Amino acid sequence: MADALRQIEGSVTAPRGFRAGSTACGIKSDASIKDLALLIADVPCVAAATFTTSRTPAAPVLVCKEHLAASGFRAQAVVVNSGNANCSTGEQGLRDAREMARQVAERFEIETELVMVSSTGIIGRPLPMEKVTAGIGQVQPEANGGDAFSDAILTTDTRAKKIALEFTVDGTTVRLAGTTKGAGMIYPNMATMLCYITTDAAVDQRWLQTILRSAVNDSFNMICVDGDMSTNDTVIVMANGLAGNAVCDGTTPGSATFEAALRQVTRYLAREIARDGEGMTKLMEVRVRNAATDADARKAARAVTLSPLWQCALAGQDPNWGRIMAALGASGADFQQERVAITLGNVMLVRDGLATDYAREDAVAQMSGDEVIISVDLGAGTASATAWGCDLTHGYIDENTLYTR
Amino acid sequence: MADALRQIEGSVTAPRGFRAGSTACGIKSDASIKDLALLIADVPCVAAATFTTSRTPAAPVLVCKEHLAASGFRAQAVVVNSGNANCSTGEQGLRDAREMARQVAERFEIETELVMVSSTGIIGRPLPMEKVTAGIGQVQPEANGGDAFSDAILTTDTRAKKIALEFTVDGTTVRLAGTTKGAGMIYPNMATMLCYITTDAAVDQRWLQTILRSAVNDSFNMICVDGDMSTNDTVIVMANGLAGNAVCDGTTPGSATFEAALRQVTRYLAREIARDGEGMTKLMEVRVRNAATDADARKAARAVTLSPLWQCALAGQDPNWGRIMAALGASGADFQQERVAITLGNVMLVRDGLATDYAREDAVAQMSGDEVIISVDLGAGTASATAWGCDLTHGYIDENTLYTR
Repeated sequence: MADALRQIEGSVTAPRGFRAGSTACGIKSDASIKDLALLIADVPCVAAATFTTSRTPAAPVLVCKEHLAASGFRAQAVVVNSGNANCSTGEQGLRDAREMARQVAERFEIETELVMVSSTGIIGRPLPMEKVTAGIGQVQPEANGGDAFSDAILTTDTRAKKIALEFTVDGTTVRLAGTTKGAGMIYPNMATMLCYITTDAAVDQRWLQTILRSAVNDSFNMICVDGDMSTNDTVIVMANGLAGNAVCDGTTPGSATFEAALRQVTRYLAREIARDGEGMTKLMEVRVRNAATDADARKAARAVTLSPLWQCALAGQDPNWGRIMAALGASGADFQQERVAITLGNVMLVRDGLATDYAREDAVAQMSGDEVIISVDLGAGTASATAWGCDLTHGYIDENTLYTR
Repeated sequence: MADALRQIEGSVTAPRGFRAGSTACGIKSDASIKDLALLIADVPCVAAATFTTSRTPAAPVLVCKEHLAASGFRAQAVVVNSGNANCSTGEQGLRDAREMARQVAERFEIETELVMVSSTGIIGRPLPMEKVTAGIGQVQPEANGGDAFSDAILTTDTRAKKIALEFTVDGTTVRLAGTTKGAGMIYPNMATMLCYITTDAAVDQRWLQTILRSAVNDSFNMICVDGDMSTNDTVIVMANGLAGNAVCDGTTPGSATFEAALRQVTRYLAREIARDGEGMTKLMEVRVRNAATDADARKAARAVTLSPLWQCALAGQDPNWGRIMAALGASGADFQQERVAITLGNVMLVRDGLATDYAREDAVAQMSGDEVIISVDLGAGTASATAWGCDLTHGYIDENTLYTR
């Protein structure tokens, strides 16, 4: 199936019928940095979305939910500002988020409830609405503006994160593209992960929501930022149907291809976030297998990525597997330690819960690259899961010690 | 009640009828560092204990449980080595832990099942039993050896942690003392927290276990290391009864005094661990009140101490309360953000979920000392909880990047 998914150049404007653009309107202190981005479809789209489940959701998250409910899960535009999260901003924050949508709707002559809103940046400060209004008035969405959009949604990210796929659904060529941002995510619950996915495929809304939830669960929810834990997390898919394929709804032959493409896009973008964690030098991929349950496999894999001690060891190329074992033991997953195997790259460090006679230099060599694979066999069942994380370095400390100054 | 608890000099040998000592036997690479410690009571003691609930418990934890079950929750001695955790060491690890107890029993002519065993240090390496055996042969417990014991159980700690109290139980003067170790605990599930508490009071075993569990829950389980999550965590209380008081069992008038003393000792020692976190420069005390439930209060308080972003902000004296709000939102506690108040020291930063008009310099000033108090009012009920943590600095990274080399 994946062979049929051709990666092509571009970002969220690769599918037909989407335009995007960005502008610098001074929300960020450096006035030359683009901080307002707009994505707009030529026609109303079927939409699916997942949002943070934090008890302190940001205003734009609440407004997206309002608008999706009012529109019957349709959307036509997304407006995003970086530099200010519009979170913990109370009623004024809600009014500001609604006003952002209203201004976009007015300028582009679409319904307000078809406009999604996102914000990312510092929490607790009112949105500078004059700047936002100026930005909305000045942004020029274009058919090749996907890259500009991807760049303008970044905060502490070091690079844009985007992907576009082309594939055939029941004889019709369609495209699916996505972009995301997020870097301050070495641990859960702290930063904003935003992701926008576009497609010109025709897709049934209910089925799209179902496969999106599953895809997010295995991608964004398996990186070190917990997708359901920060204040602004948002994943939105917009399907404008302009490819003219038979509507994918899970029953058509092409539905499986579309779902595979969606899973590839979300997994790629999630991994890109982990690969751009603040201060990171190494990506880790943790593959857990033979867990008792799916939930156990996920818990175990994530526990390893979340251990700051193991993250530090990874930075230092120190194959201190005891920290992996301790993280597994504390994960809440059910297993017997005497059945555990731990492999670093292709060197097995632990078998039957005990150190093998591996050579330290061989283990260190497995940690020398910029991607390190940790494989864990829990010997407790047949479930598996993969999680992604990164190392913990001085760069993280530097980046976060004086964030609001 | 607390007025009647007089703090006195000394450690675990302050109560009558306990001796302790330590020796350097070469388990640690620096042969001059004391790495084996022994605590022994003149008579068998009533014992209560709590241990890690990790799925990868260390061998000495399993042996302590075996011995307590066999002895009917009595104990007379504790032998502790630092430098090696005897964890992930399989059957050999269990044999080694049992042998440590046997050797102590033989040398001091007590029953093996009255000997508790602890280990702390690197995971996954066999105990160097020749060195341990030599250490057990050479350690000389003395009535003033409590400080030597407190020193020898340390690993990355920068200082010993101990306290002794004297108070009156139903007309009899008794003493209660404790010592603990632990520093690599800026996050849960990674380091070993060991704690030994002695008393010459006569105490009913079942009641002692009950009040110990409650005291641990409000102290060690509220610091950044989760008491039930690491591989070697151990808290043991030994009550030798030599004070001759009427047995405290929860019904005698003096029982409340004894329980207050136990809670003061565990709280003091837990706070000392947070105050000695690896690389730390500032202690934080997070006081949550008006939570909907006790569980919510605990979750919310711990979530703030566990946020690396807030820990970094604390290090930088950056009053970035949005990170506190995000941590609360992600904690799983139930509340409405528009009812939350956050106060730093005596400066209220957030009221009704929104920033107050505080002056930044005033907020920064509240973070300038080595202890910072964060008070959170969730406005959701009447429950409260306090948690302790510390900041996250370059020192933590340095300490953990090359631990096993």
